[in-house]
Amino acid sequence: MPDPRFFSVVGPFRLSALAEIISAEIHGACDPECLIEDVAPLQSAGPKDISFFDNKAYQAAYQKTTAGACVVAANAISAARDDLALLVVEDPYRGYALIARALYPNIDATNNLSQKDNIDATAELGPGVMVAPGAVIGPRVVIGANSLIGANAVIGAAVKIGKDSIVGVGASVHYCIAQDRVRIAAGARIGEDGFGYAPGAEGHLKVPQLGRVLIGNGVEIGANSTIDRGSGPDTTIGDGTIIDNLVQIAHNVQIGRNCILVAQVGISGSAIIRDNVVIGGQSGVAGHKTLGAGARVGAKSGVMSDIPEGATYVGAPAMPQRLFWRQMATLKKLATKSTDD
Amino acid sequence: MPDPRFFSVVGPFRLSALAEIISAEIHGACDPECLIEDVAPLQSAGPKDISFFDNKAYQAAYQKTTAGACVVAANAISAARDDLALLVVEDPYRGYALIARALYPNIDATNNLSQKDNIDATAELGPGVMVAPGAVIGPRVVIGANSLIGANAVIGAAVKIGKDSIVGVGASVHYCIAQDRVRIAAGARIGEDGFGYAPGAEGHLKVPQLGRVLIGNGVEIGANSTIDRGSGPDTTIGDGTIIDNLVQIAHNVQIGRNCILVAQVGISGSAIIRDNVVIGGQSGVAGHKTLGAGARVGAKSGVMSDIPEGATYVGAPAMPQRLFWRQMATLKKLATKSTDD
Amino acid sequence: MPDPRFFSVVGPFRLSALAEIISAEIHGACDPECLIEDVAPLQSAGPKDISFFDNKAYQAAYQKTTAGACVVAANAISAARDDLALLVVEDPYRGYALIARALYPNIDATNNLSQKDNIDATAELGPGVMVAPGAVIGPRVVIGANSLIGANAVIGAAVKIGKDSIVGVGASVHYCIAQDRVRIAAGARIGEDGFGYAPGAEGHLKVPQLGRVLIGNGVEIGANSTIDRGSGPDTTIGDGTIIDNLVQIAHNVQIGRNCILVAQVGISGSAIIRDNVVIGGQSGVAGHKTLGAGARVGAKSGVMSDIPEGATYVGAPAMPQRLFWRQMATLKKLATKSTDD
Repeated sequence: MPDPRFFSVVGPFRLSALAEIISAEIHGACDPECLIEDVAPLQSAGPKDISFFDNKAYQAAYQKTTAGACVVAANAISAARDDLALLVVEDPYRGYALIARALYPNIDATNNLSQKDNIDATAELGPGVMVAPGAVIGPRVVIGANSLIGANAVIGAAVKIGKDSIVGVGASVHYCIAQDRVRIAAGARIGEDGFGYAPGAEGHLKVPQLGRVLIGNGVEIGANSTIDRGSGPDTTIGDGTIIDNLVQIAHNVQIGRNCILVAQVGISGSAIIRDNVVIGGQSGVAGHKTLGAGARVGAKSGVMSDIPEGATYVGAPAMPQRLFWRQMATLKKLATKSTDD
Repeated sequence: MPDPRFFSVVGPFRLSALAEIISAEIHGACDPECLIEDVAPLQSAGPKDISFFDNKAYQAAYQKTTAGACVVAANAISAARDDLALLVVEDPYRGYALIARALYPNIDATNNLSQKDNIDATAELGPGVMVAPGAVIGPRVVIGANSLIGANAVIGAAVKIGKDSIVGVGASVHYCIAQDRVRIAAGARIGEDGFGYAPGAEGHLKVPQLGRVLIGNGVEIGANSTIDRGSGPDTTIGDGTIIDNLVQIAHNVQIGRNCILVAQVGISGSAIIRDNVVIGGQSGVAGHKTLGAGARVGAKSGVMSDIPEGATYVGAPAMPQRLFWRQMATLKKLATKSTDD
Repeated sequence: MPDPRFFSVVGPFRLSALAEIISAEIHGACDPECLIEDVAPLQSAGPKDISFFDNKAYQAAYQKTTAGACVVAANAISAARDDLALLVVEDPYRGYALIARALYPNIDATNNLSQKDNIDATAELGPGVMVAPGAVIGPRVVIGANSLIGANAVIGAAVKIGKDSIVGVGASVHYCIAQDRVRIAAGARIGEDGFGYAPGAEGHLKVPQLGRVLIGNGVEIGANSTIDRGSGPDTTIGDGTIIDNLVQIAHNVQIGRNCILVAQVGISGSAIIRDNVVIGGQSGVAGHKTLGAGARVGAKSGVMSDIPEGATYVGAPAMPQRLFWRQMATLKKLATKSTDD
């Protein structure tokens, strides 16, 4: 369930009303007039939640889900529990997007935009907190003792930042729960919308991004880096991880403890980076990949596969470093030979 | 002609005065005392405009131009219309830059810097517009109904933003005409100077950037992305195109409708991206290249050539994806063999 | 010695107290009760400074240093002057970090965060300076005649900016001395912490970044670019150098005059870029490398070695361009042949 501190749900909706919104047929032994209150992933959805299924990787979760209803394509009907209410459409992700938009129509408007004062009266600032000129602190924000908020920084509604932390000048933090001793450098953007769209003939349909950014103790985030909030799950950064400037972290990424991400790295959506991983500058990691604990990625690499624990990968596409350097040596030799011919 | 809402021209100048500014000789059957009022590209220049020619690709436009005068190198004299006034110099681009600087000396000063209030009295805000604390709205700005301007965002003089749009916290928008339902995330920079310089022995001479950024309906632009305004032509983003975080779009780039640009992509000056193009994360496109409709570019690729309609390119330099993967497989095989030897 | 305009040192500390802070043994013919006032590099340290040695490249400087004391590992004891006071630890860099943190505990708090007004009363603005709404100017800032400070920009304590300069909207400048005719575009971040950490079992220990950013005459810096201040030495950008959008310059980098850095380039720590170097978009340069005067680097390259004066390098890893293109041609030929088989 999206965190109600950040996201205001409207509803409930009758299942029949949701079916109408997305032009779906209702299948299954269910009451079309039952009430649906929220969206949730298959794994955590309860009887008043609606979920969606469009990726074989989640087949097991689909079969076991306790969701009240699920948006699916016709070819997924047979695999469902008999008593699971199904909304059958051509594009389940697009269907989910439309329902989530109906349930959460006001995401942007609630995001501290309507307040009149720089520091909202409902914000709680701990002892020793310093707020520099021009900084804007939204409603229900909580900031721990001795933290510093830089000039012209913006802290969105209901954000929580621990003690002894620093938010740099001009940075912004939204939909975020951060622990203690966190440093966010100037201009970093925490908690913006993830890049989630359901493509379609009439254009790309924005999918409401209903997750948060969770930041561990002692995390440091460099200047002008961007960490998008989750789409439903959260984006998480583990204790002690340090992130350089101009790094991009997409929605739902999970980063472990004590990792090092050098400048201009980009991590695609739902990638998992385990503890103590080091990623060299300008490298990228594709979506949904897992980098095992202690893995290392050379600079300017493009990771398109999982990386085993402790392994070092280099290149684009990235491969074990020994293999990469052998390929480079082979190519060099062949090019020299071909000139000699 | 540069949009007078954004750029204040001084003058007119006599042709002889402009010749003196750039130490040019005057050629052609013309009156050196005629008045020149503005700069313009060869294709659109009229009798009171001065243009320049230094790139063979524009030879046809040069021969047909109705400009009042043109800055050229000596080797271009013979190709000109007899009655076209020519200012002959060694480096026509540098000559153009100096003339444009003389005609537009105050670009920066006019850019909302002198106002006293956060929201200028001449700005027109539609019904339902919300402006968060610290946001700065320049003179003659027009914002459509129900749009939201985030905390500490800055909207430069004469910018027009349609209805139902959002400008994120700390973002800035200058020299821009945006349609409806546009979303600009936190920290994005729309309309800054393009990277235009005439190199020279005594340093790189900045060329005034006299174009705009035109943004279509439903466009979304990610956090901390940068879209430079045109140098004379405009930079344009078509309806429904979505752009992720930390993306760079250089001056004069034309992007079509419903394109997808993933995080950290960079598009160099004057590139043309047709409709429905998808560009993977961290990829780059070289200047003046054209990507045909529906083209796809893999992540981390470097596009150095045009891409045909519907084709998928990968690699740096980018090539058809089948070719790329065949090369990778070949190299892998050869490297293995070379170890076996 | 760190510039006292930016960094307030506390102390002095007795050598014995510093040894206790880092759990070091004291070696050498020295007085453990002598007073240490500051940190400094081996080359410039005087009798009241403490330095550290952990990199063979600085062996000569270590043997000749006039520092009052030095943090070293046990295997470096024998190479020291007899009368040099040594604090012996397992990890000298971590030891240095802890001592620097003890001497400079208040870096962040002094950085204009406590002021009450947008323009501090002690700031000196030259004639014709314009400060747009929302801009914040810290204590002891000096801004030269006719410079423009954009809306919501932030200028940190004691920063000096010359005349005829522009700081774009929402940009921030800290720990920086800039000359005349400097242009800093919107959202650029000058002077943030360098990415300096001493790794350790209990997490990465932040090393205080005690240097500045020095910017020459006529330098231009693009939107949302980031230039970190030095760690002790300064980060320097030479006269006339132009830097595009979203470029990352790490701590201690030295860039010469009239260089061109295209968008999304990244320069790692302590790299040296001589005069008139051109670096194509999205390229990276590894730490501590030197690019000779007039060197050129193709777009999307990864420079892992020094580049000779005037040479053109391409590829990742970068190599002389002829070699790169020959390798590309060879690979293409081999891949075609392998298909024919």
